[in-house]
Amino acid sequence: MKATIERATLLKGLSHVQSVVERRNTIPILSNVLIEATAEGGLKLMATDLDLQINETIAAAVDQPGATTVSAHTFFDICRKLPEGSQVSLAAADGKMTIMAGRAKFQLGTLPRDDFPVIAEGELPVSFELPAETLKQIIDKTRFAISTEETRYYLNGIFWHVSDDGGAGGAGPVLKAAATDGHRLARVTMPRPEGAESMPDVIIPRKCIAELRKLLDEVDGSVGVSLSPTKIRFDLGQALLTSKLIDGTFPDYSRVIPTGNDKILKIDPRSFEEGVDRVSTIATEKTRAVKMALDRDKIILSVTSPENGTAAEEVPGEYVALGFEIGFNSRYLLDILGQLEGDTIEVHLADAAAPTLIRENDKSSALYVLMPMRV
Amino acid sequence: MKATIERATLLKGLSHVQSVVERRNTIPILSNVLIEATAEGGLKLMATDLDLQINETIAAAVDQPGATTVSAHTFFDICRKLPEGSQVSLAAADGKMTIMAGRAKFQLGTLPRDDFPVIAEGELPVSFELPAETLKQIIDKTRFAISTEETRYYLNGIFWHVSDDGGAGGAGPVLKAAATDGHRLARVTMPRPEGAESMPDVIIPRKCIAELRKLLDEVDGSVGVSLSPTKIRFDLGQALLTSKLIDGTFPDYSRVIPTGNDKILKIDPRSFEEGVDRVSTIATEKTRAVKMALDRDKIILSVTSPENGTAAEEVPGEYVALGFEIGFNSRYLLDILGQLEGDTIEVHLADAAAPTLIRENDKSSALYVLMPMRV
Repeated sequence: MKATIERATLLKGLSHVQSVVERRNTIPILSNVLIEATAEGGLKLMATDLDLQINETIAAAVDQPGATTVSAHTFFDICRKLPEGSQVSLAAADGKMTIMAGRAKFQLGTLPRDDFPVIAEGELPVSFELPAETLKQIIDKTRFAISTEETRYYLNGIFWHVSDDGGAGGAGPVLKAAATDGHRLARVTMPRPEGAESMPDVIIPRKCIAELRKLLDEVDGSVGVSLSPTKIRFDLGQALLTSKLIDGTFPDYSRVIPTGNDKILKIDPRSFEEGVDRVSTIATEKTRAVKMALDRDKIILSVTSPENGTAAEEVPGEYVALGFEIGFNSRYLLDILGQLEGDTIEVHLADAAAPTLIRENDKSSALYVLMPMRV
Repeated sequence: MKATIERATLLKGLSHVQSVVERRNTIPILSNVLIEATAEGGLKLMATDLDLQINETIAAAVDQPGATTVSAHTFFDICRKLPEGSQVSLAAADGKMTIMAGRAKFQLGTLPRDDFPVIAEGELPVSFELPAETLKQIIDKTRFAISTEETRYYLNGIFWHVSDDGGAGGAGPVLKAAATDGHRLARVTMPRPEGAESMPDVIIPRKCIAELRKLLDEVDGSVGVSLSPTKIRFDLGQALLTSKLIDGTFPDYSRVIPTGNDKILKIDPRSFEEGVDRVSTIATEKTRAVKMALDRDKIILSVTSPENGTAAEEVPGEYVALGFEIGFNSRYLLDILGQLEGDTIEVHLADAAAPTLIRENDKSSALYVLMPMRV
């Protein structure tokens, strides 16, 4: 294998693929990136952790086609430090890959390309397109609620499913994305994309979501989504991300979305967020509880910490129902408020022990459910 | 105590003092900042870790003079989150301090001001002035060489001493600042400031240096330095930093500065630095060794790592002595090169086992000694 690549092009490609490679691997070849110089010209890069695989194609002048694998992180670190604007030449032979640029020369040990594991995609019968912007929003508005408890592996991702029951603001088939950790739930609803009619229910793992979200920052236009009940692939143009899906059953989350909460608070999400952020300064790591005392058009946020003291702030809001007090985990509340825009949001409350619904209004695509805390 | 302060003023003052306060304290009051509203108007803030003390005076409207102490980090965190441009009112009574700004109100527990420990300064008979710029340079060019080994406590700071033996580029009395960890030494020489004639030898602790350096970023003009054999005080205008000195004897470092190294390499510090940085990419955390092979006007840097592979780079330089090879810790070499400016530096070598001298030229105020490594 012999090829020459612009340093900036190589760096960008490697930055994508090395991100998939875990820092510690018991199987040595999983630390490596597969590099293939093709006869047609161009370099194919590939990395995997056995659950997630990334393929990237970059422009290169190929003198001699061939393939090898080298440590992804080391190759990336070297590439970062090569002089800006330099041409990088790669040559693999006799169990070594030589990297040359400017006056510098590196030799890295290689492992045979044939030992490199590939995720067998099988058939991906369902495929559709989503605007990159839409995909970004789906992820941003739900990912914070993904559970990190490994024992509840079926909650360690975002659940996607199609439904005919209409979504926010009207009828028509929809695609819904949901994430929950048992304490809070985030759900986004959007019109069902063409081609997604027979989409199976899928749970996309957290790491795939994280890598996808990073790649989306560099993508305009549309992203191709293809999936089967066990795999999903995102086609981002230069990069192709393929992931196994979580093999489990997502709970029937619709049962926890309250529909009869009759105490409605209308409030500016920014002053609400700032107030919660301020009073929670003195909350301890352990509890993080913030108390909300609601009275006619008067909302008082407060925190009491035996260690630190007390904090209180009145936040303006529109509220006409019976006054009462309710507590929330301030971190969870801030996560949700951080995703809400507009001048006013709706908080649907029932009592101090019941799940609370938060959304912009009845037309918004995103809704959030938050379990209260005893305070 | 009752006072009102602009949030920005309070925030700046607290950011300075809270930095001295350790995160964990076995003595509760050491977590606190002493706040004193003076009858003349203005607020005095003070914090200490028993070795280092900071006093800061800020503008405030005082309604009722008095003093109290509250948690420095909590007070600082609250202040950071208060609305920009707000006026902050403080009131202390009955074991509590109330902080109010905008619609927010906080109450923090206090500890009595009389329990707050003060470093007894005693007399500081020697005092002189140093331009803030000079002080910054002395610190920047030496602090990286301070030892972190707690058992060698007498190396955990920068050593200052005066000498009549002249410095770089001439005769006349000088002030020298030196730091070493046994592997490398950094020394800066400057004309002895007026008033420093009878200065005792002092070792200024690492933490004092770190806090001083942060404060210097906001200071123009001169800094007043006062000291005794056991204490030092830096007067930075708004802030006053007082520190105990390290009670130990700094080794006679002048013996390790080589004077007879006759192999001279002249080299551009930037291409040297970049070359070392690049080849050390594949060095392992354990060794960090970089090999330098010198031959007539030809310098080859290289690293061999059994795990990662090899790296080599030729760097242009002026060298006419006998060719040989020498190894250095790349981290230490980069620390030194990072402090060197100009187009050319001098590296004075003897052999592969002898201390190497690095400096800009024979007129430069800073010089560095680096012990080689076996490679």
